[in-house]
Amino acid sequence: MSYAPFDWLDDEARRRADAGLVRSLRPRPAETELLDLASNDYLGLSRHPEVTAAAAEAVRTWGAGATGSRLVTGSTALHAELEQELADFCGFESALVFSSGYAANLAALTALTGRDSLIVSDAGNHASIVDGCRLSRAATAVVPHADPEAVRKALHSHGGRALAVTDSVFSVDGDAAPLAGLAEVCRGADAALLVDDAHGLGVLGRGGRGALEAAGLAGGEGVVATLTLSKSLGSQGGAVLGPDRVIRHLVNAARTFIFDTGLAPASAGAALGALRLLRREPERAARAGAVAVELYARLTEAGLTAVRPDAAVVSVRAPSAESAVRWAADCRTAGLAVGCFRPPSVPDGISRLRLTARADLTRKQISAAVGTVLATAPLPVS
Amino acid sequence: MSYAPFDWLDDEARRRADAGLVRSLRPRPAETELLDLASNDYLGLSRHPEVTAAAAEAVRTWGAGATGSRLVTGSTALHAELEQELADFCGFESALVFSSGYAANLAALTALTGRDSLIVSDAGNHASIVDGCRLSRAATAVVPHADPEAVRKALHSHGGRALAVTDSVFSVDGDAAPLAGLAEVCRGADAALLVDDAHGLGVLGRGGRGALEAAGLAGGEGVVATLTLSKSLGSQGGAVLGPDRVIRHLVNAARTFIFDTGLAPASAGAALGALRLLRREPERAARAGAVAVELYARLTEAGLTAVRPDAAVVSVRAPSAESAVRWAADCRTAGLAVGCFRPPSVPDGISRLRLTARADLTRKQISAAVGTVLATAPLPVS
Repeated sequence: MSYAPFDWLDDEARRRADAGLVRSLRPRPAETELLDLASNDYLGLSRHPEVTAAAAEAVRTWGAGATGSRLVTGSTALHAELEQELADFCGFESALVFSSGYAANLAALTALTGRDSLIVSDAGNHASIVDGCRLSRAATAVVPHADPEAVRKALHSHGGRALAVTDSVFSVDGDAAPLAGLAEVCRGADAALLVDDAHGLGVLGRGGRGALEAAGLAGGEGVVATLTLSKSLGSQGGAVLGPDRVIRHLVNAARTFIFDTGLAPASAGAALGALRLLRREPERAARAGAVAVELYARLTEAGLTAVRPDAAVVSVRAPSAESAVRWAADCRTAGLAVGCFRPPSVPDGISRLRLTARADLTRKQISAAVGTVLATAPLPVS
Repeated sequence: MSYAPFDWLDDEARRRADAGLVRSLRPRPAETELLDLASNDYLGLSRHPEVTAAAAEAVRTWGAGATGSRLVTGSTALHAELEQELADFCGFESALVFSSGYAANLAALTALTGRDSLIVSDAGNHASIVDGCRLSRAATAVVPHADPEAVRKALHSHGGRALAVTDSVFSVDGDAAPLAGLAEVCRGADAALLVDDAHGLGVLGRGGRGALEAAGLAGGEGVVATLTLSKSLGSQGGAVLGPDRVIRHLVNAARTFIFDTGLAPASAGAALGALRLLRREPERAARAGAVAVELYARLTEAGLTAVRPDAAVVSVRAPSAESAVRWAADCRTAGLAVGCFRPPSVPDGISRLRLTARADLTRKQISAAVGTVLATAPLPVS
């Protein structure tokens, strides 16, 4: 008998190829002429000298790794400092840092619910939230996008413990969740509200304090936020923010916290450096949003279809998956890196170019980006 | 109506307190007099000047973060280099790097199985494997620890696609899986074999090439390995190693790869630096194992009950959870950091001290560690 337990992968690969959906890695060089509107480095801090110096200093002081799980040897004073400053900045009682935002979402969803719980989840939520719902073993009701009334109905259909979960800013279209309405229906149903502020931190709220601060919900009794340290803060990692008893519970119950190695000191140090820089230069937050609105305005004025950005992500519709891929490739040839979202990473099957605004884009760079996107557009634009 | 959706957490906290199972974080300082036998820094590389220099150099060259998911902007030439050298070193065709070993296990288990698959999982497997089984939606058969015959029976009860999964070295007791036997029953059932070599890499195999190299299974047609970069390599992150078609499939299908930010350059650089150091100084691998065996021999000769270590983890039984906690605390007071495993992190409910050998422990440090563990033991020892 031949031993070939992975032969089925070839069929899968053929299916992907036939559908034009093959993805492959394209490692980038350290220096490039490409103008970057594809990364999530919204504030342009990943290569900021203060941030890289903080990372290098953390490596020198603490070593290259955390050396163990957070409950054994993986908690350093640097992690504690970062957690304190993150909580203070965003207006929450406590914070807990993870090795990724993905792990933070899995932790919050699994530890704050249970078999008898209901999770009400927006149809547009990030993959890590979807996976957290699956892992939790709670009943999950997926409700239409950005629809507090649908959340209210789902919550009222359930008697026991419940939690509603949403992205603050949706990764694909860049639109914001109706947080005030969601908080109200959660309060009415004694349900917790979990908000993934990955794309809001550093862009929304006073000086970038995030979507929950902007909505007046930060630090609320039933409110928990998850964050990434890898977008506006230019580093790696994630965090959960909430009431102290929630954080203490996660330390004791969240498997992706307990059984994972602590975040590397360099990443903790970089995130802390970026946070301090943002405190000192709060105008970076508003600037990222303003650049996004300008990109949107100029592209739609020229006839493209886009979603008005609520944060730093500008999503432009493409006629098809193939044309989106070609459009992004043509932009690249013309010197502009943009994201290309297509099935299966888009919940609605619609392909788009995804442009991310950065606070440090110059006027000239913005014009160049707009010019390139228009010149390469698959449909005639005015 | 009062709004207090997290009141139930107080009951949980009380239950934990009553059971003596409260965990809290104890951030460590950068410099300490404590002798470390608690971390997973098996080769003592986390603070090695070459490794920290590689991390700092990566930050200077690439910035503090990967800036996006691996399929957008998060793949650098550094990631590609690390993947190539990891695959070469361990004897596999290809490798894919993740932000954690946890994410790597979730990826392999979800993307290489499906609703109609069977996963056969050792009862002692790591939490990330258990979570991967849950997330996969495959049927999961949990079989008795280290029992190829039980795996064979489970595989033969199932007609379709199947995968057996095991830790190479079990984290709690430090014992090794019967890899040759498992590979044989997998071959007989046309099932894939997934091995988490988190605790084998850097310690087992020729020059630390891992448990699969040691068993002559590296690079096999149906064999996939997961690794961490956070133990022997002193950094952060994880990897999946396997046939090229498996890795290409993960790039296209593994959610914890596609929807996560790439590993921070500092961590990729540190892991690569550690790997190159290990290639140049292969004797570090055998040394870690020899230190573990010496610790085991001296502790058991004095009357303690321990499991003969197959890699660098030495697990010593404690009479109860409370005495294990006290024992570890007494060791700490006497200047020795050791791990303390107790419910619910131990699958069998038995509490232990967990000592990790490091390749760079001196003769004097080994004697001091043995002396302290014996002097603080809760039972009379000879």
